[in-house]
Amino acid sequence: RISWISDIIVVVSPENTETMKTIVEKYGHKRVTVVKGGITRHRSIFNGLKVFAESEISKYVLQKPEVVVIHDAVRPFVEEDILLEVVMAAKEHGAAGAIRPLVSTVIASSADGCLDHSLERARYRASEMPQAFLFDVIYQAYQQCTDYDLDYGTECLHLALKYSNIKAKLIEGTADLWKVTYKRDLYAAESIIKDNLSQQVCVITDVKEDAVQVGFLLHESLKSQIKVEVISISLCKNDNYLQNMLSGGCYNFIYIHDKQSALQETQQLVDILEKSNTTLSYPVMLISVHLNSSENISFSIGMEELTSIKKFAREVKTKNIWAYGLLIHYK
Amino acid sequence: RISWISDIIVVVSPENTETMKTIVEKYGHKRVTVVKGGITRHRSIFNGLKVFAESEISKYVLQKPEVVVIHDAVRPFVEEDILLEVVMAAKEHGAAGAIRPLVSTVIASSADGCLDHSLERARYRASEMPQAFLFDVIYQAYQQCTDYDLDYGTECLHLALKYSNIKAKLIEGTADLWKVTYKRDLYAAESIIKDNLSQQVCVITDVKEDAVQVGFLLHESLKSQIKVEVISISLCKNDNYLQNMLSGGCYNFIYIHDKQSALQETQQLVDILEKSNTTLSYPVMLISVHLNSSENISFSIGMEELTSIKKFAREVKTKNIWAYGLLIHYK
Repeated sequence: RISWISDIIVVVSPENTETMKTIVEKYGHKRVTVVKGGITRHRSIFNGLKVFAESEISKYVLQKPEVVVIHDAVRPFVEEDILLEVVMAAKEHGAAGAIRPLVSTVIASSADGCLDHSLERARYRASEMPQAFLFDVIYQAYQQCTDYDLDYGTECLHLALKYSNIKAKLIEGTADLWKVTYKRDLYAAESIIKDNLSQQVCVITDVKEDAVQVGFLLHESLKSQIKVEVISISLCKNDNYLQNMLSGGCYNFIYIHDKQSALQETQQLVDILEKSNTTLSYPVMLISVHLNSSENISFSIGMEELTSIKKFAREVKTKNIWAYGLLIHYK
Repeated sequence: RISWISDIIVVVSPENTETMKTIVEKYGHKRVTVVKGGITRHRSIFNGLKVFAESEISKYVLQKPEVVVIHDAVRPFVEEDILLEVVMAAKEHGAAGAIRPLVSTVIASSADGCLDHSLERARYRASEMPQAFLFDVIYQAYQQCTDYDLDYGTECLHLALKYSNIKAKLIEGTADLWKVTYKRDLYAAESIIKDNLSQQVCVITDVKEDAVQVGFLLHESLKSQIKVEVISISLCKNDNYLQNMLSGGCYNFIYIHDKQSALQETQQLVDILEKSNTTLSYPVMLISVHLNSSENISFSIGMEELTSIKKFAREVKTKNIWAYGLLIHYK
């Protein structure tokens, strides 16, 4: 996703390396090397760094980078700008890390489980990730540090200070950098992803007057809540214009038409979405709206149409597309 | 909710006192006094404590308690057992507070925004709420503390230590005591509430054989995921037994019957739920399932039934009940 990152080392526990390799392959991630982790945080990070310096860890030694970023998988919402900021600060200072204000006061307890002293909250910060280092600064620190550090330490910035005498630059990070730790954090993470996926909806209408009109009204009623893009197009011919429209950032599509059976056209949308890799990381929602103004409603024909949409939805669900059909009858 | 708490002082910002009074009245909360807050945390807590000692704050001075609990509204999932634990510890030690392990390492920054030093994570704890104090211990501490403490302090345990020389007992709290701070925390809180509401479902079936059979099958298929209670009863007569069954802890009801129009019986369920105050704090879900085995389906009669259920659902929604109708036709 970020072009200036030359290599990504994913450190995972030995029992999960195969699963991780499968994931890397499935989603077509490039520049990734999977490395076996150690029994503590620091031992795992050290293993990751060794890929750039020692041939025993991986089949070949990767080219040593000037700056290395260390990040946790439990902080999935890291943006490019904070990565760039810590990298630039590390280049200048030797080390840098994201911080956040403390949410609760921090206290020290005495041996008997009573309060020893409390820290003035404003003077302290929570150390978060990502952190970045000149490669030599952090690698030398890991080479020099003790078994006690490797087994009980939790802070890379501390190692850089203690063993390489580098005072890390602290960078204020965003709230989304929090650590997904408890079950409730999974719900919170889900909500953030859903928020991101529902920023935009693309309404595709038939060129017929009624469909265009409904598309216009939908735009009017939704535009205050969500970014709405309306395209009126005939889906019969494969269209490069449409392909470009659909290939980024939008995960919600509403297709409005007046055809008895528009499955062929809807399938065309599915094909375009698949080709654009939109469905690789996130689910796509696709609602096919059939406007029916014919005088005689035949109940059985309506049922037949809904049944075929259900079948279609079952098929495309395997492609990470959630299809829905809506049949609107009006006079 | 907790009988051994004699008074509850709710401290709110001056502009929200009227709203809070409305809430207290609407939900029938007892033993509650609403007090205007100050401009900082400590000034607000001090105002709350004054209700027990000074007549200027409220119309009448409440009886001074032996122990006072201090809690944040941003930690909505506090359980009786942790409250009891901190209260008992405060009675013995003079002060006590809930703590949690640190999720991130805490660091101190120097004036130039660089790392000064990092704290060994295992030696420190996050100070959470609830906290409890012998009333005199915390009230004297607030009376003695400086304007600087009142304006910049964040920790009541610290005041008890500094001004009353009491070392608070620290009690390990549950993860649910976290502070709802960011938008994502609202989603996390919502997920915890939903989890709690979906612990149990009560299936009420007609006494007819088919309904009883469906109730039995529903029990079999749901019991591995949720606590299921099945009652077979004729809803024609008002039943005290049913009333007792419904009056606590269950927020999901499925009513299975074979009646063309069971709205009267469903209304009876609504009445019982309303009387039991179940719907006061949380929404109740009520699904009316109509098993129809008659030979001739009339489409228009089916539509009519669904329309009347929709109307019924709209009405009971104002009572915090979400009603759904399901029409099952079988041979």
